[in-house]
Amino acid sequence: MREVATRSKAASHRLTQLDTDQKNRCLLAMAQALLDNRQAIQEANAKDLETAQEMKLSGAMVDRLILNETRIQGMAQGLREMAALPDPVGRELDRKERPNGLILRKVATPIGVIVIIYESRPNVTADAAGLCFKSGNATILRGGKEAIHSNQVIARLMVQAASACEPQFPAEAIQVLETTNREAIPALLSLTGLVDLCMPRGGEGLIRAVAACSKVPVIKHYKGVCHVHIDKEADLEMAVRVAINAKTHRPGVCNAMETLLVDRAIASEYLPKVATELAAHEVGLRGDSEVVSILQPLIEKQQLALKLETATEEDWHAEYLDLVLAIRVVDNLEAAIAHINHYGSGHSDAIITSDETRAQWFMRDVDASAVYWNASTRFTDGAEFGMGAEIGISTDKIGARGPMGLEELTSYKWLCFGNGQIR
Amino acid sequence: MREVATRSKAASHRLTQLDTDQKNRCLLAMAQALLDNRQAIQEANAKDLETAQEMKLSGAMVDRLILNETRIQGMAQGLREMAALPDPVGRELDRKERPNGLILRKVATPIGVIVIIYESRPNVTADAAGLCFKSGNATILRGGKEAIHSNQVIARLMVQAASACEPQFPAEAIQVLETTNREAIPALLSLTGLVDLCMPRGGEGLIRAVAACSKVPVIKHYKGVCHVHIDKEADLEMAVRVAINAKTHRPGVCNAMETLLVDRAIASEYLPKVATELAAHEVGLRGDSEVVSILQPLIEKQQLALKLETATEEDWHAEYLDLVLAIRVVDNLEAAIAHINHYGSGHSDAIITSDETRAQWFMRDVDASAVYWNASTRFTDGAEFGMGAEIGISTDKIGARGPMGLEELTSYKWLCFGNGQIR
Repeated sequence: MREVATRSKAASHRLTQLDTDQKNRCLLAMAQALLDNRQAIQEANAKDLETAQEMKLSGAMVDRLILNETRIQGMAQGLREMAALPDPVGRELDRKERPNGLILRKVATPIGVIVIIYESRPNVTADAAGLCFKSGNATILRGGKEAIHSNQVIARLMVQAASACEPQFPAEAIQVLETTNREAIPALLSLTGLVDLCMPRGGEGLIRAVAACSKVPVIKHYKGVCHVHIDKEADLEMAVRVAINAKTHRPGVCNAMETLLVDRAIASEYLPKVATELAAHEVGLRGDSEVVSILQPLIEKQQLALKLETATEEDWHAEYLDLVLAIRVVDNLEAAIAHINHYGSGHSDAIITSDETRAQWFMRDVDASAVYWNASTRFTDGAEFGMGAEIGISTDKIGARGPMGLEELTSYKWLCFGNGQIR
Repeated sequence: MREVATRSKAASHRLTQLDTDQKNRCLLAMAQALLDNRQAIQEANAKDLETAQEMKLSGAMVDRLILNETRIQGMAQGLREMAALPDPVGRELDRKERPNGLILRKVATPIGVIVIIYESRPNVTADAAGLCFKSGNATILRGGKEAIHSNQVIARLMVQAASACEPQFPAEAIQVLETTNREAIPALLSLTGLVDLCMPRGGEGLIRAVAACSKVPVIKHYKGVCHVHIDKEADLEMAVRVAINAKTHRPGVCNAMETLLVDRAIASEYLPKVATELAAHEVGLRGDSEVVSILQPLIEKQQLALKLETATEEDWHAEYLDLVLAIRVVDNLEAAIAHINHYGSGHSDAIITSDETRAQWFMRDVDASAVYWNASTRFTDGAEFGMGAEIGISTDKIGARGPMGLEELTSYKWLCFGNGQIR
């Protein structure tokens, strides 16, 4: 592991020497190489699929493993889009002129060596390596053993294409770990002088295991327990529309709403409206006692065909990723904020209100990566935020927070321009 | 520990409700309380000094422990200066308007709960708690057991003063751990949902121990192995002046130069000049074979009264913090950069050259928090960088890098303004 990381560190120091045009040409060459070598990729992928059958992986796992024509084109397209994005390195973030004449420029730099740990989807290889390369970082990729042949061929094609295109390209800027040994991860993540950051991508179990063993910084994406709070001053028609979208547009993703909070003042008017729509979308509800007392009579009178259960403490913590929704009536805005800060995951939370003061209050006090006023939580996403590409969504607060695009893959340094200043 | 952290988290959520004026009034009240209660502080301090004698602490340790009139005034002055600094929370860092009309504002937020682990100096209690408070963070302070009485009285006075000044001030925003038990640290730093950041301040041993046990992010300041490289295009008079300042102005601090690199093209001209000045400042040298071959004859001819030893591999890694300097002749600029990136600590490095292209090359490729062109490395410091106050200097690249003032104690969130947008 130390050798791999040492080579990666050396490569990261050579990457600073490539200018933006050189990096972009490399990305385009990588994209072309993936398209030109579809057959080699699919042959390697076939080996992985064979092993997957032997390992008796689930249908969903096998599906994520497949590299068909569309997915190969998707990887190539992703690399082309990265080439078109502005270079995040060298941006001036701050500038100061000191009384002694020293000029300080705070500029964005690559982070250095980034380890990406992921499962199953081999297209992550191209996405992650491409984004890290464009931001000047060297990558060490550790995919699942079920995808090792696919991952290796993708990385090899990218490195070969970039090396042919730019002789200065350091071939070890993109490395796939050859071993899929479990012990390799803690060994690699103990190399604090060589590895600068680890980004695990996958289920909560993987992320917690990586975070627990790592001695290097880890940027994590745990889960999305996202809330929409319907304020007493809400436009109730908008409040229904946004809640339905946040819950049902794509329930299996991290920015989908998991808990709906409703101000008591409008609960008896709003809940039947939203419940009717939720029922139409086949969403099952877990309501607190007030929600149940408002909706249960309607169900009994057959005015509402809804699956309604009484919520338990666990429901307020739950990331269902499914057509299930927890609903709670709250005393007031303060109680809504307290609920979110206690049970939320710091991902995305929204308020629906027509009152700007109340919206600002919510936006100031809710501790989350993205806080919405009169919009769906579903917008927390690199593409929707105009970042052009996304390597993940951070629920951490040190380094990047929220959607991570190219800028979030940079650090900074201070460039200090003098003419002989001494202290 | 969980209870302490839970209270701190709750306090951190209430801190967002204090506006800038309220925070500043609290800081001024804290400053006044420290001055008004000098006697109580000195009584508590006397207890610590008594214990220190029983523990047979070294003279240097005891000196750092003392809270005399000057140091108490220093703490109060520090808090007043923090009150005068701009509020780092709420700064707009980025702004985007999306095609769907959503307006995204990236604004600075507090980080949340910050654990400060430190040794000996009780004035860190006021400095760290004040900076964290101004940036909207709750603090859990863990000083050394030798300073427990001093630390507790300082924190108690600050909390009482702020509570009297602003009834909204959450008393648990500043907590000193009551236990000085060693096991408390790993227990506290395992609370990933409650503690957002740990900043150890002290020797490398303390920092490594904290980093090794922590499950929460740690911002570290390991050491400063700072370099000055004298390029072949340097103004040699400036090159002598800056090198002497970087080494001798205050040799015991992290931004002092530890290794001097000299381009071979000017070595035989530059080395005798700088060696003469270094000798006058009683700096002992550890030179590579070329340095020795140039300087040894001068010493033998008694033209130079210098302590010169041959450098070993260890010297290139050394943080002497003393009047000792490693010197190496390098082939060219590329070799200087390679040496720095290999042996340096990523703290502060300088080039002396009259050639802008060569300076830009050095500044782009040297991987350090501050890179200087024609100035001393001694400027890497919060006050010199115009930050007004400093909580430390980070040698990490995730989160803050280099000097950390108030802005470096913030995270960010995205505020998303809509009018009913759904996906």
